Amino acid sequence: MAMIKYPTGQGSKKNLKEESSTNFGRRGMSLEKMINLSNKHYLNLGIAVVHKKPTPIQIVKVDYPNRSHARITEAFFRQPSTTDYNGVYKGYYLDFEAKETTRATYLPLDNFHEHQIHHMEQCLKQKGICFVIVSFVKLNRFFMLNASQVIKYWNLQTKNGRKSIPVEIFETHGYEFKPSSLPLIPYIDYVDAIIAKESK
Amino acid sequence: MAMIKYPTGQGSKKNLKEESSTNFGRRGMSLEKMINLSNKHYLNLGIAVVHKKPTPIQIVKVDYPNRSHARITEAFFRQPSTTDYNGVYKGYYLDFEAKETTRATYLPLDNFHEHQIHHMEQCLKQKGICFVIVSFVKLNRFFMLNASQVIKYWNLQTKNGRKSIPVEIFETHGYEFKPSSLPLIPYIDYVDAIIAKESK
Repeated sequence: MAMIKYPTGQGSKKNLKEESSTNFGRRGMSLEKMINLSNKHYLNLGIAVVHKKPTPIQIVKVDYPNRSHARITEAFFRQPSTTDYNGVYKGYYLDFEAKETTRATYLPLDNFHEHQIHHMEQCLKQKGICFVIVSFVKLNRFFMLNASQVIKYWNLQTKNGRKSIPVEIFETHGYEFKPSSLPLIPYIDYVDAIIAKESK
Repeated sequence: MAMIKYPTGQGSKKNLKEESSTNFGRRGMSLEKMINLSNKHYLNLGIAVVHKKPTPIQIVKVDYPNRSHARITEAFFRQPSTTDYNGVYKGYYLDFEAKETTRATYLPLDNFHEHQIHHMEQCLKQKGICFVIVSFVKLNRFFMLNASQVIKYWNLQTKNGRKSIPVEIFETHGYEFKPSSLPLIPYIDYVDAIIAKESK
């Protein structure tokens, strides 16, 4: 697997900078933190079981200073082969990815890795509910969008050269929400909307 | 989170030892390796999308020797808060854990952590399909068993002091299989059986 500079969701300098600019009464909370709190909220209330997957690490060296502890002394971040979050809600399989962007009019597609797109395609084929949660940091706008739209724009890249998803697509096909009370990221509302639409 | 000695599925000395004793034409393949190959098989054929979750690591120190690489120089294994495997099959949420034991007549319950049991309970409540895959290394016998049985025996511990699941429970309530051709661990067969039983 390829080594990468900054893994998704890792507390990198870039993310810390973005966090400080999303401080709208949420004390500079990152999108990841907001989702983790929402997961916890849904879990505690018995509404859904969703966890963030651990960051994949390539371990090179491990020391055993004593019998009770293993200490990793050399390791690297690996590129995740799936999305960051998955779980179960009323028997439905949920799968999503979170992205923050400082762009005001579009989400650059280089926020995604090819295998993440491929994973979303595979999940949709297995009738999983798969979507992205996007924070337009400078606009203070939050959206959820079905993975099928992301895949569509990903595939358009090779055809028309467009390397982003316009914010208008989020406005017309997505689900906009304002993080206020818990759950800050009310993704189950969006999932309910998808289920209602699909069962029509 | 608590630091642990050997994380599940990590290439610890204990696991390597167990691997060499499970060499029955599978070239000393560990149960984890067999499951990973089975996941890949199901994925390649478009049958199911199941991945092993990365081992959770607590990162303490990271070096940036140059702009393109981050090198972790101090980290520790954390205890997983969920099971190791989950994914989607025909819209169903799948969740399972794999355990190897050298015991011949029972699976010791200390193979599980309390939060893993709790996670399985939560998944079952959300109508997920949740089970364990167990390899009795010395017997060369392999079973799948619904998580509800594991939870039952876990809860019995405090009542009758029994700290294990007898192999008879696997024989009467589980699904026995012989790893031969791909998929070595045919867990989708077991999932189909669970679905058929539940839809009756």
